[in-house]
Amino acid sequence: MNKTRLEAFSDGVIAIIITIMVLELRPPHGESFATLRPLLPVFLSYVLSFIYIAIYWNNHHHMLHACHKVTGSVLWANLHLLFWLSLIPFTTAWMGENHYAEPPTALYGLVLLMAAIAYYILQSRIIATEGRNSVLARAVGSDWKGKLSPVLYVFAILIAFGSHWASKAVYVLVALMWLVPDQRIERALVRREDS
Amino acid sequence: MNKTRLEAFSDGVIAIIITIMVLELRPPHGESFATLRPLLPVFLSYVLSFIYIAIYWNNHHHMLHACHKVTGSVLWANLHLLFWLSLIPFTTAWMGENHYAEPPTALYGLVLLMAAIAYYILQSRIIATEGRNSVLARAVGSDWKGKLSPVLYVFAILIAFGSHWASKAVYVLVALMWLVPDQRIERALVRREDS
Amino acid sequence: MNKTRLEAFSDGVIAIIITIMVLELRPPHGESFATLRPLLPVFLSYVLSFIYIAIYWNNHHHMLHACHKVTGSVLWANLHLLFWLSLIPFTTAWMGENHYAEPPTALYGLVLLMAAIAYYILQSRIIATEGRNSVLARAVGSDWKGKLSPVLYVFAILIAFGSHWASKAVYVLVALMWLVPDQRIERALVRREDS
Amino acid sequence: MNKTRLEAFSDGVIAIIITIMVLELRPPHGESFATLRPLLPVFLSYVLSFIYIAIYWNNHHHMLHACHKVTGSVLWANLHLLFWLSLIPFTTAWMGENHYAEPPTALYGLVLLMAAIAYYILQSRIIATEGRNSVLARAVGSDWKGKLSPVLYVFAILIAFGSHWASKAVYVLVALMWLVPDQRIERALVRREDS
Repeated sequence: MNKTRLEAFSDGVIAIIITIMVLELRPPHGESFATLRPLLPVFLSYVLSFIYIAIYWNNHHHMLHACHKVTGSVLWANLHLLFWLSLIPFTTAWMGENHYAEPPTALYGLVLLMAAIAYYILQSRIIATEGRNSVLARAVGSDWKGKLSPVLYVFAILIAFGSHWASKAVYVLVALMWLVPDQRIERALVRREDS
Repeated sequence: MNKTRLEAFSDGVIAIIITIMVLELRPPHGESFATLRPLLPVFLSYVLSFIYIAIYWNNHHHMLHACHKVTGSVLWANLHLLFWLSLIPFTTAWMGENHYAEPPTALYGLVLLMAAIAYYILQSRIIATEGRNSVLARAVGSDWKGKLSPVLYVFAILIAFGSHWASKAVYVLVALMWLVPDQRIERALVRREDS
Repeated sequence: MNKTRLEAFSDGVIAIIITIMVLELRPPHGESFATLRPLLPVFLSYVLSFIYIAIYWNNHHHMLHACHKVTGSVLWANLHLLFWLSLIPFTTAWMGENHYAEPPTALYGLVLLMAAIAYYILQSRIIATEGRNSVLARAVGSDWKGKLSPVLYVFAILIAFGSHWASKAVYVLVALMWLVPDQRIERALVRREDS
Repeated sequence: MNKTRLEAFSDGVIAIIITIMVLELRPPHGESFATLRPLLPVFLSYVLSFIYIAIYWNNHHHMLHACHKVTGSVLWANLHLLFWLSLIPFTTAWMGENHYAEPPTALYGLVLLMAAIAYYILQSRIIATEGRNSVLARAVGSDWKGKLSPVLYVFAILIAFGSHWASKAVYVLVALMWLVPDQRIERALVRREDS
């Protein structure tokens, strides 16, 4: 099966997800800067989700670079990941419009959690096809970021009902943790080329 | 003619179709979880259609992999398929918003039926160009899934007016039947490489 | 300059144009088939525009296949064509919602006319770079379809104010005329490979 | 890392941005040409933004053509540019709907300014990886257009509060200045091939 087409389709879907979120940022009816103020939480939600989806695209990019065989299970694991990512515009919009409310903040985390699990499944399926000694398997290694993120999401969902601000702070923290690009795979590839 | 560009265009259209469906899932005006409840049927319709379009992309992917010549008739048969797929967001939205109603359930099946027929025409056009002894022709073989699906769609459309639940159950059943990835073509390709 | 990226960008824009038109087909609020009736003209406008954009994609595909050098003027002529195509969803929506009205029918034709002129300019720019004896120049030949279409669009715009039905009939006629795929370029390519 | 996928993703996002702007051009409820008149400023804003995004795509295209290594910082600088471009549909819509107002005109310029800065950062990151003697570094040269544009945007933002018309005239002027395709890189590439 053709990896290029899998990448192209994923790129298309991710590009659309990242862009249609901006449709939620509707121009206000007034013409003064003051009319923009209610849009601020919508805008900040957009920024956060833009960064999350950019991180996913970036890591997906790296991971597939180290993948050589696209089996049926890899293909469906990839579609499963795209499904959860496709719900991010919805949770972003709900959280942006109800920025002092706990349930939207918790649901935002729940979809992030499901996307993280879907990413983990995809990674496992690729490693299963590539083999335990593959570049990807060694690159992922202990995968502390991948294991810590779902734990932090669960934590953020639980505390959302106490303080939605604390919950949002956790989402920002996880994003910052990942913003440092995932150089493990890059390094493993370099090491392989060296030896 | 250029197969790559046909694939890229189809991927683009399918990626947009699968993603814009989520725009129908509008954030509720309230901020409690209870306000999400009316969205549940819209969400379930989205899940079902996401799976259907993913199946089409998946099978389209396999079929074009085994296609070597893109003639004018293949190109238009492909556009014809994309046309019916492009109506799925509409029928999904109508069914999601009127989930206890028979007509939207029947129309949903009608568009699936037309897409299935369009897929069959595309497959026939490709086999006609590739030849009776091509990888694709042998891979498709008796094509029981491709022949059974339209029959089940017609059945689901007819029973929709008696029980829309029974009709929806048939749509889920057909999706499950296809979720098992179409390994016939893959197997035929492997067999060919072996010999 | 890179032809592949020009094609990919054009494919992306055309894929989005052809798909977002369907967003205008909003699910009716009722649940009976009768509530679909007012959507019929919107649907028919969608079908017509889908075919037009498919024809443009198809011919664009053929034309760029015979193009080898992408100069700055080719690039901007291509963006100019995409601009007019991007207005088709707007004119389609206006005509679909006001199907007994003359002005929307005339405006629909005006945008088709501008797109046809933009296509002609793009074709001329490519021939200018490829040379008078290029495959494309010989393939286009007398280009009766390309010359007749704008004339028919002008005719349709003028008669729209008398009878919008007659005007729409002309749009359908031009679409049918082009639906026969543009085999001139294909034939010229074959002839060249033969000699 | 894979330049092709970076280009494909950027193309996808830019293609969506340039196309969804047209969704703001909603068909009027009336059916006479007079009902189109209030849409004129929305249409003119669309034309201006279409040209700006086309210029960005064009220059991005040239710049990446001269880039050979995609590092993590190049990738994020590119996503940063896409973020600011993704806000153009919003500022275009606000300016189009409030065309006699100063704040939307100023905000439009602010987003253009941020995009110009993001483009400059991306260019610097690429030159840093490619080296001071690379094709790109020499091609960019004194980069008077790239340096003049932000200055003109700041000027336009400031005068917007005096006369929004003068401000808009500056935006048109900058667009015209760039419409002349950026031939510096092309020329440098040609020079290198010559020597």
